[in-house]
Amino acid sequence: MSRLNFTSDYTVTCTPEILKGLASLGHESFTGYGFDRISEEARNKIRELCVAPEAEVYFLSGGTQANEVVINTWLAPYQGVIAATTGHVALHEAGAIEHGGHKVLAIPGVDAKVSAEGVRKFVENYYADDNHEHMVMPGLVYISNPSEYGTVYSLKELEELSAVCHEFQLPLYMDGARLAYALASDGYDLTLPDIARLCDGFYIGGTKCGALYGEAVVFPKKNTIPHFFTMVKQNGALFAKGWGAGSQFLTLMSDGLYEKLGRNAIEKANEIRKALDEKGYTQYIRNTTNQIFIVLTKEKNEELARSVELGFWENLPDGHVVMRIATSWATTEEDVKALIELL
Amino acid sequence: MSRLNFTSDYTVTCTPEILKGLASLGHESFTGYGFDRISEEARNKIRELCVAPEAEVYFLSGGTQANEVVINTWLAPYQGVIAATTGHVALHEAGAIEHGGHKVLAIPGVDAKVSAEGVRKFVENYYADDNHEHMVMPGLVYISNPSEYGTVYSLKELEELSAVCHEFQLPLYMDGARLAYALASDGYDLTLPDIARLCDGFYIGGTKCGALYGEAVVFPKKNTIPHFFTMVKQNGALFAKGWGAGSQFLTLMSDGLYEKLGRNAIEKANEIRKALDEKGYTQYIRNTTNQIFIVLTKEKNEELARSVELGFWENLPDGHVVMRIATSWATTEEDVKALIELL
Amino acid sequence: MSRLNFTSDYTVTCTPEILKGLASLGHESFTGYGFDRISEEARNKIRELCVAPEAEVYFLSGGTQANEVVINTWLAPYQGVIAATTGHVALHEAGAIEHGGHKVLAIPGVDAKVSAEGVRKFVENYYADDNHEHMVMPGLVYISNPSEYGTVYSLKELEELSAVCHEFQLPLYMDGARLAYALASDGYDLTLPDIARLCDGFYIGGTKCGALYGEAVVFPKKNTIPHFFTMVKQNGALFAKGWGAGSQFLTLMSDGLYEKLGRNAIEKANEIRKALDEKGYTQYIRNTTNQIFIVLTKEKNEELARSVELGFWENLPDGHVVMRIATSWATTEEDVKALIELL
Amino acid sequence: MSRLNFTSDYTVTCTPEILKGLASLGHESFTGYGFDRISEEARNKIRELCVAPEAEVYFLSGGTQANEVVINTWLAPYQGVIAATTGHVALHEAGAIEHGGHKVLAIPGVDAKVSAEGVRKFVENYYADDNHEHMVMPGLVYISNPSEYGTVYSLKELEELSAVCHEFQLPLYMDGARLAYALASDGYDLTLPDIARLCDGFYIGGTKCGALYGEAVVFPKKNTIPHFFTMVKQNGALFAKGWGAGSQFLTLMSDGLYEKLGRNAIEKANEIRKALDEKGYTQYIRNTTNQIFIVLTKEKNEELARSVELGFWENLPDGHVVMRIATSWATTEEDVKALIELL
Repeated sequence: MSRLNFTSDYTVTCTPEILKGLASLGHESFTGYGFDRISEEARNKIRELCVAPEAEVYFLSGGTQANEVVINTWLAPYQGVIAATTGHVALHEAGAIEHGGHKVLAIPGVDAKVSAEGVRKFVENYYADDNHEHMVMPGLVYISNPSEYGTVYSLKELEELSAVCHEFQLPLYMDGARLAYALASDGYDLTLPDIARLCDGFYIGGTKCGALYGEAVVFPKKNTIPHFFTMVKQNGALFAKGWGAGSQFLTLMSDGLYEKLGRNAIEKANEIRKALDEKGYTQYIRNTTNQIFIVLTKEKNEELARSVELGFWENLPDGHVVMRIATSWATTEEDVKALIELL
Repeated sequence: MSRLNFTSDYTVTCTPEILKGLASLGHESFTGYGFDRISEEARNKIRELCVAPEAEVYFLSGGTQANEVVINTWLAPYQGVIAATTGHVALHEAGAIEHGGHKVLAIPGVDAKVSAEGVRKFVENYYADDNHEHMVMPGLVYISNPSEYGTVYSLKELEELSAVCHEFQLPLYMDGARLAYALASDGYDLTLPDIARLCDGFYIGGTKCGALYGEAVVFPKKNTIPHFFTMVKQNGALFAKGWGAGSQFLTLMSDGLYEKLGRNAIEKANEIRKALDEKGYTQYIRNTTNQIFIVLTKEKNEELARSVELGFWENLPDGHVVMRIATSWATTEEDVKALIELL
Repeated sequence: MSRLNFTSDYTVTCTPEILKGLASLGHESFTGYGFDRISEEARNKIRELCVAPEAEVYFLSGGTQANEVVINTWLAPYQGVIAATTGHVALHEAGAIEHGGHKVLAIPGVDAKVSAEGVRKFVENYYADDNHEHMVMPGLVYISNPSEYGTVYSLKELEELSAVCHEFQLPLYMDGARLAYALASDGYDLTLPDIARLCDGFYIGGTKCGALYGEAVVFPKKNTIPHFFTMVKQNGALFAKGWGAGSQFLTLMSDGLYEKLGRNAIEKANEIRKALDEKGYTQYIRNTTNQIFIVLTKEKNEELARSVELGFWENLPDGHVVMRIATSWATTEEDVKALIELL
Repeated sequence: MSRLNFTSDYTVTCTPEILKGLASLGHESFTGYGFDRISEEARNKIRELCVAPEAEVYFLSGGTQANEVVINTWLAPYQGVIAATTGHVALHEAGAIEHGGHKVLAIPGVDAKVSAEGVRKFVENYYADDNHEHMVMPGLVYISNPSEYGTVYSLKELEELSAVCHEFQLPLYMDGARLAYALASDGYDLTLPDIARLCDGFYIGGTKCGALYGEAVVFPKKNTIPHFFTMVKQNGALFAKGWGAGSQFLTLMSDGLYEKLGRNAIEKANEIRKALDEKGYTQYIRNTTNQIFIVLTKEKNEELARSVELGFWENLPDGHVVMRIATSWATTEEDVKALIELL
């Protein structure tokens, strides 16, 4: 048996339905590169769930890849992408955006989120600056939902952000690596159709939400990025066996599975949050999703580390350490109980 | 039942052992990004088979990605990669090498292969040119084995090529997308340990040799490319669930499976070749592996197309068309019989 | 006194009018980055001479820079540039186009020129290839006039090329590093207004035609490349003191100076060609401009090298060597006589 | 006569010695690409003044170009450059560093300067972060001296910074666009030999210090960046007529001219600073060089704008505006008097 592990939501293999779906394809022969009937079924499922019948859908292998291919292909060479300073593209993609020739225009987040006001201020300052033609033009807005700190965009927040973006002709792109955990969070008022209506592009996360691999990149409007297929190929992101990810998304998007997987993580996280509150732990930031950030003394952290793996987040200037407890589609009641006992 | 399909070796799902291997991992929790015990087992298996105990092994998702990450990271910014004009990197990767900032220095192939003499001539001409500091320096040699036309490098050819490369301090890199089909070809005298001894980097193909996805990039010597892990991440090529590809290579490399899968394709191809010869078909280029290139009239091609899918290769100036018949690990005796009857 | 030197047309300092023009500006204060009145005067002069009143004109420092900034900014990321295999961008810019992420799609030249037929064939083949979405799309056609071998495009040739380009929606771009020497060549029927009418972009060469530095990039139609100013800056190609190059082009484009400088080179080259013919020399390729390519034995080449510097061009397989004799705006009658005596 | 203009130090043409130097070369023929005797004399002059006999020196056309070519060529693909958030490379080069594939790792400046402590903290945090292999590795430190706010590095500051950089194997690179104005500032204790001893690369600014164009990039140690010549070419930064910039630096570096030009700007700035203090103006940041940043009400700014051109710097949140007064090598006593009267 493996050790108690709450480091992330991608540690446990994959939900059994995924492998069942793949196995069900038997020895069939498929057209390559995503032009197969399984991928098309998956795309149609996503179009339906998003109420976006014209949507273009591409299945890529992982989150950094999705961000990189989408952002670098979308931006003109004189443009950069606005993101929160804590955004995945700003910090934890090893410079993938810059490798593609573009600057990440990092702005301070509000609860790790990009605010409509923040975008407006940044863009207005850019155009008000006499030297702006010597600077990188904002060309896209990147948000992650849930954010890297587990916070989520409400319908109102996304509507405001979308409005500002479109006022300045900035496409709005959402990284949904953990989207299942936002959609299933308590009282969440944003839906897939809202996202498809308010964002110009987004991806529905598979890897962190129960799949073996794969993310579904969705452009609600046709031909949003010209020749995107070729750009996927050029970036080494095109699967010859496209049905592999297609099948997984067909599984995830069928019979409410994605919601079910997301809901499990939320329920388990809620139990842990309750216990943490009762035991008087400090949370670094509060959110409603599957990531919990607790502030520990070095000693307590070392003590816990003997029995459970948590995710390192950051060292605080006062000597405390922020650790992440992540639940997932796979977290069991036993895991939660074992963790709570240790706390 | 799907239609008779000989278009490529990546059309049929995957060999059942692959899904069995993945399923056997159950609900286990693994460290992310390839630092798991399954990936390490797979790496050790490859080190053993290659007799390269120090080898660094990385699992990537596909062939273009492997070529792109390896080549662009290996080359200095003033260097380009030598490849045959027919090489995959020269033609069919949508400009992935150039996207990474490097020129493909295409030289004429001999039977679609890069020859030692061809490399010597190109490099000597480069250094003999008074203007060479205004030109792209050759910095790496790319070969595919089998080549894009199914031809293979003999031990002697690879020894000569390796010697020339090392004389000019050019790393030699082999794209083994279809390596199983070279290794299993009749009378083939090149082995994995030879490849590991003579090449500075190579990848063992999974996608086209029975896997769901994945290629195993091998650097026989330690630290061949500094910070390669970070470069994999930067190129969007790092799997969070690294054990997914790891498990597949553990399966493929165990119990002679890779050889067995390769051998099936060869036997089926040999049967087809025999029938083609008996029926008087012209082959565009002869080889010993799983790809057969036949020259057809437009009429015959249209006739065949009604009953079987073949791969389009090229239009000849005289109006004939070259079509590819590819067998694979999955080709059955029934498929072959059905095809032969149609011919 | 310096040694007899016919290596190139950029060896002699600059025509005295250039420094006179710069000196005439005295201690004046100018707006930076090309927004000064001198640059605007020069731009207007070029607009007039090209009969292109809407033309956008940018002054860059050199030919490789002009090609690089224009081509890399013009192409979409999935596109490459068609050029002759002998084209400057294909061979002698140290991979500048690839450094910018794009492939040079090299096609065989006819007398070192890109032909309408060659473009048509290449583009039709591309679109006829079933795999073309895995390949680099042709996105621009690059020609140099005079070519790297001194040959020139006739009005008819350029009309045909322009027609094919526009049929396939390919912008046509002319590298005019030595344009003065084409325009001044005997019986030349192509004019600046023709070029502005038939090309979508081109540059008028300064460095090789008598300037201290500088090339004038011309886009006959407004806003051909969005935010080109910012792209010039991003590529490190923006002069703070834009009037420097502006003043030089104002000088070159005034009072027929550009024609006069070009004509001197042609007359001198014609004298040399006549002498070469009389003495029975073989010319590698014949042209009407300022570059003469002669085929020499190694011995003769060494003998000549003692008294005159010629430009090395290439080694022929039969042991002969091709050397270039370049005349220029600066070549004197004495130089020519001295050279002819040596031949 | 042109309007009173204090917007920058690159507005006035060039110091007359520059054109005299160029004119003195007459009709001479030179080897191309910087391999001429004038450039070599200039390089030797710089080696002497820097007491760096082995130094490699390259003449480029402008500051952004110098930064771009040096930084992008120096960094490995997994590395970024540390700079102050106010650094030229971070803000005002239109994304040139990112265009070259690298991230600018912006850290808060101290008086717009990078501090040894700031570098230490950033680098230590990077290595202490468990996820640092998913992040951009610091690979170079960029400083500008004077900074974008006119502040300068003292000998002690540069020694400390150099020590930290070398402790972490980070090359230290100085942008000396306005170096003349640091070297000539009152009581300045840093010299060219100090810079050559403490920095691994730097450039001596020409454009802003009296030249027509040109910056001298200096690497005190041989072969600091392999094949730098080819990289200059690849980036479109190689002058065919290298003697053009060479001659200018020969002029600037001879007979104390660079010091004299710098000193003029300092004396004029000091007079203005004195007047500003007497009149009770607020300076946004105080420094000892040629740039003065004053805080104005919108009304006062508009009033001044009627008679003198100042440089816009930034809008303050409280409604004031920061304007720059820049003196230069060319500022006359009359200019200063006229300005002071207006204040």
